[in-house]
Amino acid sequence: MDRTIFEEEHDHFRDAVRRFVDKEVVPNREAWEAQGRVDRSLFTAAGAAGLLGIAAPEAHGGGGMDDFRYNAIVSEVLAEADVLSAGLGLSLQADIALPYLLHQANEEQQARWLPGAVSGETILALAMSEPGAGSDVAGIATTARRDGDHYVVDGGKTFITNGQNADLVITAVKTDPTERHKGISLLVIEADRDGFSRGRKLAKVGQHAADTSELFFDGVRVPVENLLGEEGKGFYAMMGNLAQERLSIAVQAVAQAERSVEASVAYAKQRQAFGSPIGSFQHIRFTLAELQTQVDVARTYVDRLLMDHVEGRLSDVDAAKAKWWTTELCQQIVDRCVQVHGGYGYMAEYPVARAWVDSRIQTIYGGTTEIMKEIIGRSMGL
Amino acid sequence: MDRTIFEEEHDHFRDAVRRFVDKEVVPNREAWEAQGRVDRSLFTAAGAAGLLGIAAPEAHGGGGMDDFRYNAIVSEVLAEADVLSAGLGLSLQADIALPYLLHQANEEQQARWLPGAVSGETILALAMSEPGAGSDVAGIATTARRDGDHYVVDGGKTFITNGQNADLVITAVKTDPTERHKGISLLVIEADRDGFSRGRKLAKVGQHAADTSELFFDGVRVPVENLLGEEGKGFYAMMGNLAQERLSIAVQAVAQAERSVEASVAYAKQRQAFGSPIGSFQHIRFTLAELQTQVDVARTYVDRLLMDHVEGRLSDVDAAKAKWWTTELCQQIVDRCVQVHGGYGYMAEYPVARAWVDSRIQTIYGGTTEIMKEIIGRSMGL
Amino acid sequence: MDRTIFEEEHDHFRDAVRRFVDKEVVPNREAWEAQGRVDRSLFTAAGAAGLLGIAAPEAHGGGGMDDFRYNAIVSEVLAEADVLSAGLGLSLQADIALPYLLHQANEEQQARWLPGAVSGETILALAMSEPGAGSDVAGIATTARRDGDHYVVDGGKTFITNGQNADLVITAVKTDPTERHKGISLLVIEADRDGFSRGRKLAKVGQHAADTSELFFDGVRVPVENLLGEEGKGFYAMMGNLAQERLSIAVQAVAQAERSVEASVAYAKQRQAFGSPIGSFQHIRFTLAELQTQVDVARTYVDRLLMDHVEGRLSDVDAAKAKWWTTELCQQIVDRCVQVHGGYGYMAEYPVARAWVDSRIQTIYGGTTEIMKEIIGRSMGL
Amino acid sequence: MDRTIFEEEHDHFRDAVRRFVDKEVVPNREAWEAQGRVDRSLFTAAGAAGLLGIAAPEAHGGGGMDDFRYNAIVSEVLAEADVLSAGLGLSLQADIALPYLLHQANEEQQARWLPGAVSGETILALAMSEPGAGSDVAGIATTARRDGDHYVVDGGKTFITNGQNADLVITAVKTDPTERHKGISLLVIEADRDGFSRGRKLAKVGQHAADTSELFFDGVRVPVENLLGEEGKGFYAMMGNLAQERLSIAVQAVAQAERSVEASVAYAKQRQAFGSPIGSFQHIRFTLAELQTQVDVARTYVDRLLMDHVEGRLSDVDAAKAKWWTTELCQQIVDRCVQVHGGYGYMAEYPVARAWVDSRIQTIYGGTTEIMKEIIGRSMGL
Repeated sequence: MDRTIFEEEHDHFRDAVRRFVDKEVVPNREAWEAQGRVDRSLFTAAGAAGLLGIAAPEAHGGGGMDDFRYNAIVSEVLAEADVLSAGLGLSLQADIALPYLLHQANEEQQARWLPGAVSGETILALAMSEPGAGSDVAGIATTARRDGDHYVVDGGKTFITNGQNADLVITAVKTDPTERHKGISLLVIEADRDGFSRGRKLAKVGQHAADTSELFFDGVRVPVENLLGEEGKGFYAMMGNLAQERLSIAVQAVAQAERSVEASVAYAKQRQAFGSPIGSFQHIRFTLAELQTQVDVARTYVDRLLMDHVEGRLSDVDAAKAKWWTTELCQQIVDRCVQVHGGYGYMAEYPVARAWVDSRIQTIYGGTTEIMKEIIGRSMGL
Repeated sequence: MDRTIFEEEHDHFRDAVRRFVDKEVVPNREAWEAQGRVDRSLFTAAGAAGLLGIAAPEAHGGGGMDDFRYNAIVSEVLAEADVLSAGLGLSLQADIALPYLLHQANEEQQARWLPGAVSGETILALAMSEPGAGSDVAGIATTARRDGDHYVVDGGKTFITNGQNADLVITAVKTDPTERHKGISLLVIEADRDGFSRGRKLAKVGQHAADTSELFFDGVRVPVENLLGEEGKGFYAMMGNLAQERLSIAVQAVAQAERSVEASVAYAKQRQAFGSPIGSFQHIRFTLAELQTQVDVARTYVDRLLMDHVEGRLSDVDAAKAKWWTTELCQQIVDRCVQVHGGYGYMAEYPVARAWVDSRIQTIYGGTTEIMKEIIGRSMGL
Repeated sequence: MDRTIFEEEHDHFRDAVRRFVDKEVVPNREAWEAQGRVDRSLFTAAGAAGLLGIAAPEAHGGGGMDDFRYNAIVSEVLAEADVLSAGLGLSLQADIALPYLLHQANEEQQARWLPGAVSGETILALAMSEPGAGSDVAGIATTARRDGDHYVVDGGKTFITNGQNADLVITAVKTDPTERHKGISLLVIEADRDGFSRGRKLAKVGQHAADTSELFFDGVRVPVENLLGEEGKGFYAMMGNLAQERLSIAVQAVAQAERSVEASVAYAKQRQAFGSPIGSFQHIRFTLAELQTQVDVARTYVDRLLMDHVEGRLSDVDAAKAKWWTTELCQQIVDRCVQVHGGYGYMAEYPVARAWVDSRIQTIYGGTTEIMKEIIGRSMGL
Repeated sequence: MDRTIFEEEHDHFRDAVRRFVDKEVVPNREAWEAQGRVDRSLFTAAGAAGLLGIAAPEAHGGGGMDDFRYNAIVSEVLAEADVLSAGLGLSLQADIALPYLLHQANEEQQARWLPGAVSGETILALAMSEPGAGSDVAGIATTARRDGDHYVVDGGKTFITNGQNADLVITAVKTDPTERHKGISLLVIEADRDGFSRGRKLAKVGQHAADTSELFFDGVRVPVENLLGEEGKGFYAMMGNLAQERLSIAVQAVAQAERSVEASVAYAKQRQAFGSPIGSFQHIRFTLAELQTQVDVARTYVDRLLMDHVEGRLSDVDAAKAKWWTTELCQQIVDRCVQVHGGYGYMAEYPVARAWVDSRIQTIYGGTTEIMKEIIGRSMGL
């Protein structure tokens, strides 16, 4: 099924991203997975290739193009090269964290932080989840007490992508512990401040190249100049950026699903059993026909929402719909692709095996499927 | 989710169709279901309203607009008024049978048949399925033996929509019984010819307003002037028209699903249990959130294919994908809607109950889900 | 898979039931469906055959055998003869309503009511559901106001099996409208009392032989001697009888599923397409292999619970588990069986088509799947 | 739901196994996973605890009890201690490989091999799968050419459990390459023979404690005394042992599912969100109610088949049914349990996360779901 949303400049960009991924990501993936984190050089290379600040102002080194199709292309190329999870930190930086600097930061802050974020010299993290508060964002317990012209931050975060690599941590804190949503603010915390420490790199069952970590704040003094947006408005800022975050995940889910189906079709044509390619057996043929249909459907849907976002009218509810539906679908599809591969579907050297284990987190991070359904249900007046 | 495929003239047409459906279909549905067929007057009324020959040349009374969006609108309005199955004969005539007259009939034939088909004076049927050949179209056993300037037709058909009402039966026959696909031709057979008889109106578990029937041909002499297209090319003609047929079913499936979800949301807001609207229970809220998401996805997908068809580039494979996927989804959705309605979901006076029982045939007629997957699988080289 | 729960006397009973069903039910099913109710003679014939009061004391004409395997056999034979829904009223009488007379009625009441209920001269109904209270039993609005040695009953019921045929209606009433569960009592109301009237036989999409109806009570005076059990204890009596009711439905669900799979296997062996029996196609073969496995699993599970019930240790929670799981499974299985049958799966003359439409109510009546999950979830401390 | 298949001696055995697992397996699991194989000492400890040769003759150190319930208990205890995959090699030895020595080995061979296999001094592997032949067992390409009183074995195997640790490899070879099934024989090959080499320990996405490996045979000379059973009868011997292998996997699948549900219920009661335990949310409550029901159903089914096996009447077809159905179910259940755990469900320190990734192979090894359905379908005459 032809896609209809791209212009010629996007095609050129895609070619460039392919060259970048082939050169900088593919050869390193296995080593990064073994060491449990990507090298910092991935970020500077990505910055140099212009992938980290597409939407950032040109004055700060960015591309000055508010066109999320470019971001989508990066995810699609990573998926097509079987290195989507190695690129997780890049996506976090470019798709999810950067918007906070673009939309919530004032001019002085942008001047301070954007150049590094765009060049990849500065690695970003976004610290919301806590051991006691995942989906329930308003329930966070990390506090930032005002003390003169500083905030004093105490608490801990968990499940933080780029946790080990991060230089700047956009951190959700309670500035007013007597409130729930209205008590939340955002502080940008430099990783070299006293009292900040990185906890364990969490042992996950997949996404092995991602340095998902715990972070700790023990009386960290953060100047008020690092407050992002207004005090007490942090929750609403997060909500405002979530549509793009969720769309980003949806784009990746579809790209991953498509790639796994493509690999499975190729496998089914080449793998022989009982004297024939396994793709000639009706069950496999039907399975792959189903999966390809589902990919087409999902692709059409997400492309539509991508254009809605480009045109500035992607709603939170549509992003929530896309997020849960594509990620649940992706997991089902990749699971079926594993089965098509038989024993090889469980071997880490086969991309479909890694895709299966890596994609499992998609229905959880960025807002669980259950939270998405709450959002949608409420929007329907239920 | 806003739809983006309609122009202003489509909106006006939709209003007109709504008036037609409210006046001509809704008040009669129950009576038609009780008698097991719609009245012939439905067709003449639809013809007068311009619904039967949108794509037919103006010279023969048609609308002269090769724009399937108009047909889609008719289906959508029928669904929205909970009378989709009462309109089945109309869809058969306008979406599925008429294209044979538009694409396979020569000028003389068009002049003979189109005016009546467009005005609704002539009711069409399309006779392919046989007791011994459903999905396996090439396996039909009805023969047409050439005898001078006539064909002599012997055999029987089954599952024929408009079977009792039809005046003209576009009939797939074997003109060369030694061949499979290449032996099939299409004959247009007038219902008043000697040797033609209508069998039983089949007792179905749903679709009660549809006069689905058996038809019998016992030495029916049909002049060669009634041959549609070339002898031996009937199978390929059928294949050529199938994309539109399947898209038509997909449009109906999505429209039905959407309508059932809408009704279920309304029900869930109004129905009380344990002191609250049932929609306030998380399980119902999540269920409806899921269904609404699925409707959005399906709608986006089918709208895209609808535009492909309008632009003349809908492939058989995409039509097959849309057909199986939307109809399977529709059944799942409507089934969940029944459950939301509790006992009322099983009562014929509730549209959702009728939708459930009526829509079950969608994954079977027009090519089963299994046949669709064969088509798709083969297109993938499997 | 061999079953291990039956003794020789059960086999003899099964043979007798088969003769009864072949003679009394099978030849009449179609007529009963057309008229929307079974004849009263079905009940007297069933009574004469000893099917209605297996567990009732011999003194009142019953079988004196507290062994639910006999009841299960009746359901299984009805399913195997494709007339399960024609036997719905019998099941209601023997499996579901009779226990109220056995467990809640005092000796005088048993002497008054049991002989007729066992012989089939008296047809029973159980009236719980109301237009405003389905799953929420405690929310019923039908009241019974004490007036001397009578209760005066006002209100209405709906979805009542045997509604048109019933002579005795075991009716849930609010004797204390200020209470919820504790305000409910059970009254046995003779259908010939002033102020009692039968409403419409409800038009359902399936179960056409069942006279499911509305019932109305307009100042019906009922002597206190007709109170079943203690005032205010009606809810608990209902709960006490529900395990058997739910097991009865589970038994029927499994029997129906098994029968539909058996019919589908036979169809798949005989029906030809593309020159081979359709059962030789891998997709159909796999589908039927799946369904047969599921039937085996379900059969094993329900047989175990059946023995638990025979041995007096079937818990409410286990009955709830069996009820939702088997009925959801039955619907999925029968739906797949329809698809295997292609167009014939939608024709009322094919048992699988009727099974599909008839079985849909199973996940709703006797406590919806959702209510079952509530019961189970609470039992787990959630 | 109470289980009814165990006697007092089984309960004592279960207690002993619990002590063994707590002492020998639980403390070492993490280290074994890190090193990618279990220590050999696990086998000798298991042998000392009497777990490896329950069914072996007492004369050779075995338990002399042909009662597979004991084997099932071992699997159940491993699952309950969250170390099922660390015990994979034990199961392979005791449940799957040992029967070849019990049923196919002659007296001399038993005397040679059983004592070590039972004591754990000798670690067994079973080598069937090849890079070019997985499900298609008859398609193996490893040859054993007779040369005097030796066979000369050439070829390679893959996906071999205990591949690094094994001392004795029961190897399927083609003794007659002109035949398919009838050309297969079984040779027991000692790992210290010239020409035998172990390939890579395969990098899998889960089951990290299992040393699943490739094995290579390069002109390995094996004395004819090592032929197991008759030449050309190897395929049938494998088929004969498969019912127990598949039952063993089914037992593990159910045990794993049960354990994961148990852990999820506990988690849902303790984990708070939005001020309440997450188990109090209807969606989680319903999910866990569903899963617990499914566990009950599966447990009942597998217990029945376990008793069939103990009584010597487990059919290949029933084993195939149990294998696919329980393993597919286990994966669905564990996947839902992951979702209940949110982000923690992806952390390797949470047993449910490991269970998810480890159990994925169950629908593939021991005969894929697809092969099981072929077996079942054929048994139904399809």
